[in-house]
Amino acid sequence: MTEKYLTFLSDFGVNSSYPAQMKAVALRLTNAHIIDITHDIQPHNIREGAFVLSCTAPLFPPGTVHVGVVDPGVGTSRRGLLITTKSQIFIGPDNGLLIPAAKKIGDMHVYQLTNEKMMRFPRSKTFDGRDVFTPVAAHLLNGMAFDEVGDKISDFITLDFDSIQKSGSSIQGEVIYIDRFGNIITNIPKNMLTNHPSENAIIEFSFGKKSYKIPFVPSYGHVSLNQMLATIGSNDFFEISINQGNAAEELKVKPGSLVSINFL
Amino acid sequence: MTEKYLTFLSDFGVNSSYPAQMKAVALRLTNAHIIDITHDIQPHNIREGAFVLSCTAPLFPPGTVHVGVVDPGVGTSRRGLLITTKSQIFIGPDNGLLIPAAKKIGDMHVYQLTNEKMMRFPRSKTFDGRDVFTPVAAHLLNGMAFDEVGDKISDFITLDFDSIQKSGSSIQGEVIYIDRFGNIITNIPKNMLTNHPSENAIIEFSFGKKSYKIPFVPSYGHVSLNQMLATIGSNDFFEISINQGNAAEELKVKPGSLVSINFL
Amino acid sequence: MTEKYLTFLSDFGVNSSYPAQMKAVALRLTNAHIIDITHDIQPHNIREGAFVLSCTAPLFPPGTVHVGVVDPGVGTSRRGLLITTKSQIFIGPDNGLLIPAAKKIGDMHVYQLTNEKMMRFPRSKTFDGRDVFTPVAAHLLNGMAFDEVGDKISDFITLDFDSIQKSGSSIQGEVIYIDRFGNIITNIPKNMLTNHPSENAIIEFSFGKKSYKIPFVPSYGHVSLNQMLATIGSNDFFEISINQGNAAEELKVKPGSLVSINFL
Repeated sequence: MTEKYLTFLSDFGVNSSYPAQMKAVALRLTNAHIIDITHDIQPHNIREGAFVLSCTAPLFPPGTVHVGVVDPGVGTSRRGLLITTKSQIFIGPDNGLLIPAAKKIGDMHVYQLTNEKMMRFPRSKTFDGRDVFTPVAAHLLNGMAFDEVGDKISDFITLDFDSIQKSGSSIQGEVIYIDRFGNIITNIPKNMLTNHPSENAIIEFSFGKKSYKIPFVPSYGHVSLNQMLATIGSNDFFEISINQGNAAEELKVKPGSLVSINFL
Repeated sequence: MTEKYLTFLSDFGVNSSYPAQMKAVALRLTNAHIIDITHDIQPHNIREGAFVLSCTAPLFPPGTVHVGVVDPGVGTSRRGLLITTKSQIFIGPDNGLLIPAAKKIGDMHVYQLTNEKMMRFPRSKTFDGRDVFTPVAAHLLNGMAFDEVGDKISDFITLDFDSIQKSGSSIQGEVIYIDRFGNIITNIPKNMLTNHPSENAIIEFSFGKKSYKIPFVPSYGHVSLNQMLATIGSNDFFEISINQGNAAEELKVKPGSLVSINFL
Repeated sequence: MTEKYLTFLSDFGVNSSYPAQMKAVALRLTNAHIIDITHDIQPHNIREGAFVLSCTAPLFPPGTVHVGVVDPGVGTSRRGLLITTKSQIFIGPDNGLLIPAAKKIGDMHVYQLTNEKMMRFPRSKTFDGRDVFTPVAAHLLNGMAFDEVGDKISDFITLDFDSIQKSGSSIQGEVIYIDRFGNIITNIPKNMLTNHPSENAIIEFSFGKKSYKIPFVPSYGHVSLNQMLATIGSNDFFEISINQGNAAEELKVKPGSLVSINFL
């Protein structure tokens, strides 16, 4: 017997029952193993949702279906999408949310969700996560062919994290995500730093006019308590942290801030 | 093979391990698929818990057992209940929490939990969710007859959201729930508004002395960014929102506030 | 068929996808029933994590594997551990986190995680929860022998909650945990109070210079609304509460505060 895996990512918040409403609808239709990626994406923050999904979805077993719902355009002419890739399947709104994850995995095919037989009836105008994306996910897990949901399209809305510039020994990027520890995670990937081993290096970085010289080390505990450090985080991006402190609060940095780094 | 579904709703908070303690006890007794409805009901807020349960439980597969624990009276003479309905089964305290969900589904039968053989031993005086409601749920999922838990009763404590008045073109109701997006959800059901299609209508509503004229539309994205709107939410209640903003914060409205609406 | 149970406890926060990343890795390797104990341990608070784990893990079915990740020393020379006990299995960092739970259950054997074949490759320096502890957990659930992970050791780091002193009718202990209701949970166990039935007793307790005389009762609802009380909580520790209020906020008490109690 093959297991069926279904994940959910949303901005509904853990204090709401909207995630449970999606799960209830799924379990009426299919007997899947359900995993929450997170429901605490900042409200309406498509970019944060896309980043978290792209870090997390590729780790799941092949064939996992991921429902992503950061969807300020629900109930308008905004389209719904099914995206297939080499190993994972994505369902959600056509607003860029699913694209970075799908591109990272590769071999991407995009279908527009138009077949109303695969949707819940009656369908609310304000909750496609429950009434469209989840039923489609369940039907796919039950073996429905991809092209039964609707036609293939190529004019979907895209989104990327590639606004990185390199000039000499300097790299300019962007803060993409702040985690609960206050780690400042940038869009600068590990593979742009391969010439710089994270041992005994000093790195200079700046946000706006403020700049700092800090050690570039393999992990947080390689500097003293409450000292700042740079490291490669667990999703292979450059990040700035304070050992057992909160770098984002200390430096007053938010997602979207520009960051510039320089190896000395 | 039939799947067994068990849900939990409580005010324990996601930062506590009380939900996990209930799940551990359940899994010792039965092999069920466990789903959290939410554990972030405001502490001791039976009314909020009852509303969330009534919106969510009916969506689950028939035969699902729902354990609800918003239970300030735990350890007193407060009784425990099993409620059967046409499709769902509810277990929790006799304080009204389970009633709106059960009434909504219909064909309600109420039993008092008195059979100590179905409870955990030793039993804490402060955690019936773990020591009474969960073991009873597990035994029911394992096939125990309903009347083995105790006798049928009819003098249970009731609770409803029906304090709605209609006079001419005006409807008075109550704010029942604020979700994470700041959507202000009232107890005014969709079916009281069937004469008013949510297209091109202007609605006047007031909280206390303040009143507003806003569009009544199918969904949030039908008005400009940060504009206020009225709509029918995904659980079929009248709600007031701000497109990608937070209406409850903006209007300083809380659950329990009275609301009056008028179609112009 | 025997069910496989896998739990996670961490300080990653519910708003992060780090828990989902661990689950994804687990599900690639084994088909287990996954339960979250909590992911909202205060960042880096090993002592709080150890307390919550020790209250919760023993309740799970025998053979359950528990992955605990409160791990400020990740990526340093800090070792990883597998601990077997009479009924539960623990995996996590060698920083004391797992010890109180394991000691409570008894028959504890400790192995150091050194076999890299059981780890993820490539392995991040900052996320052993995903790259070491979870894969080891999955392999154990699949039947791997305990001693395949590495050698038995006895010089692990320990941690306990036993700093309790008794002098005459007075007991000095420590606040270990504050739950969402503001209940102040101490390390003073029920069995030190067996001579004092929680009926009709008055107890005196003090934090620092402030002292209070309050009723010692079976549960919260045995005093009037908003009245302070002492009781034995659901994990068998002495606790101080306010009926439907928040005792920790009211008394400004935090974990680590010393408490002294006296029966009158």
